[in-house]
Amino acid sequence: MTTADNAPGARMAAEIAEQPSLLAGILDERQVIADIAAEITTEPPRFVLLAARGSSDHAAMYAKYLFEVLLGLPVGLASPSVTTLYEADVDLRDVLLVTVSQSGASPDLLEVTETARKQGARTLALTNTPGSPLTEASELTVFIRAGEERAVAATKSYTCTLLTLYLLVDAMRGGDARHARDIPATANDTLSHCHDTVRHLVDRYRFADRVVTTARGYSYPGACEAALKLSETSYLAVRPYSGADLLHGPVATIDADTAVLTLASEGKGAQAMHPVLDTVATHGADILAIGSGAFAVPANSRIPLDRTAEELAPLIEILPVQRLALELAIAHRENPDQPRGLAKITKTR
Amino acid sequence: MTTADNAPGARMAAEIAEQPSLLAGILDERQVIADIAAEITTEPPRFVLLAARGSSDHAAMYAKYLFEVLLGLPVGLASPSVTTLYEADVDLRDVLLVTVSQSGASPDLLEVTETARKQGARTLALTNTPGSPLTEASELTVFIRAGEERAVAATKSYTCTLLTLYLLVDAMRGGDARHARDIPATANDTLSHCHDTVRHLVDRYRFADRVVTTARGYSYPGACEAALKLSETSYLAVRPYSGADLLHGPVATIDADTAVLTLASEGKGAQAMHPVLDTVATHGADILAIGSGAFAVPANSRIPLDRTAEELAPLIEILPVQRLALELAIAHRENPDQPRGLAKITKTR
Repeated sequence: MTTADNAPGARMAAEIAEQPSLLAGILDERQVIADIAAEITTEPPRFVLLAARGSSDHAAMYAKYLFEVLLGLPVGLASPSVTTLYEADVDLRDVLLVTVSQSGASPDLLEVTETARKQGARTLALTNTPGSPLTEASELTVFIRAGEERAVAATKSYTCTLLTLYLLVDAMRGGDARHARDIPATANDTLSHCHDTVRHLVDRYRFADRVVTTARGYSYPGACEAALKLSETSYLAVRPYSGADLLHGPVATIDADTAVLTLASEGKGAQAMHPVLDTVATHGADILAIGSGAFAVPANSRIPLDRTAEELAPLIEILPVQRLALELAIAHRENPDQPRGLAKITKTR
Repeated sequence: MTTADNAPGARMAAEIAEQPSLLAGILDERQVIADIAAEITTEPPRFVLLAARGSSDHAAMYAKYLFEVLLGLPVGLASPSVTTLYEADVDLRDVLLVTVSQSGASPDLLEVTETARKQGARTLALTNTPGSPLTEASELTVFIRAGEERAVAATKSYTCTLLTLYLLVDAMRGGDARHARDIPATANDTLSHCHDTVRHLVDRYRFADRVVTTARGYSYPGACEAALKLSETSYLAVRPYSGADLLHGPVATIDADTAVLTLASEGKGAQAMHPVLDTVATHGADILAIGSGAFAVPANSRIPLDRTAEELAPLIEILPVQRLALELAIAHRENPDQPRGLAKITKTR
């Protein structure tokens, strides 16, 4: 291990930078994903259940939109406690259970998978770890090919999971992944160009104490991931809201001391966020808009991004957020590679 | 309108106090709910989708546990944007769509209902408002009988919705509601006994700036509702977490400046929260435990409650929280009956 590798945030920085080439690698090997998609569609499910924790849960939320919008399949997000605490006997015939876990080692997801198989579900694991318990327990497995992730804060495993989920759903509908082809290049451009802007934003946000993240549709899981990333590396109290829910009560907490981070993609996402951010602006909040639609919404600061297909925007929007979380943590003299009190694998049931 | 009715929080206080008698009224009239349950079970769904916003969304989350644990039906929480933004064509044959809305006037739930009917779903509306657009659009309707709710912060409509959902699911499994019979009396005792404790807690929490609410299983939706109630009345930045998710990153933000409110029912809920709260305690947080299992978990303050069936505990646990939100708002010189920037009906799509 070099000295640089021991510097605070060195691992997280390196793993953020790896993403464009990892995403390209996943695209190159997408036939493996298409083969699993073909196996699933030979016996198409009537419903999809997703189970995950942490960043992987945000990836699962993204997959919910993909399955529903692109495939017309109703989706539920499983609450592991239904199985692990209450031992519910749920009828899962015709159901595809998709678990998402970087480590493939979460005991609760393992238990959910084993139980779901007994209850009649087909089970698919998305994991970064070949040979992990979750792959052993699941009928089908797709690896996310993110390489070993050493920083506790997930970055590359998150975007690699999103792309893998997109390619899986796209293949299930007979797509040829054409919208995803430019994603590695767009990711590369985004990371190259956001450094200076992010540095300036760190000066602006280093004293922020109350932060809200918000988005709608495909970008909403990214708002949750942004909140988690900022919380776990900089210990900020960050609360994510869907733009619609924000207007339903929590907007009362927004004031001139609140920093609002929004992810807004050109198209339906930015359109839907416009009225929400108008309201937030009247409360005096400071708004940072990130996305290809950053100039289509009211904001005080912006990180405009290249346009992509809206369903792929979440892969790009999170990149400047990862850099912001990293730089803010360093400005706060924290080490984002090893947040206090966190382990890489969480052993909840 | 009397002067007292204009005093800050007078409406919210009155509506909190109404709950025991309203709950008793719902139990008296439960045959109406049982009739709807019988209609549903003549053609049992394979899957349930729930759609709601705000406090009603927390009631929907509670219903997810009921449908899965007590009926073995897989459940999804619908994202209205899938319909309203992306116009997804989802196959909803064999699906029961349950919408929950106090007002019955949310445009997004109306659109979700109309679309779901076209997509083959049976539709059931739970609402407090006879003749509302949602009841017109839905095949089946159950009224929650909470009476007119005038405070912006929902209290009685929340608990009346929980009991109605419980009675619906209980009737669907052929139950006789026996576990619910004592709930009005327990609610009455809880409200009578919690006043002094809550007053003391207001002194303790009036300077709290960073608050986290947490629970697992049936009590988790209550943690979300507690966060919303404290946010919208006292403008605190409160973040809810499932106990399991809390250990997955956000626990890093917990420190000696954090107030943690947990709902812990005797039985599986408190058991599952024990290790979570052990970890939170090592971070130095101040823990308030509310529930029949309050003495079974590590805590600095407690509001112990009478034991109920675990699936009914959420109706009782929220009562001291409502009083705490009310009293904290008044201590902060806010008027919880009319939070800044909030309307009773939110018109998001």
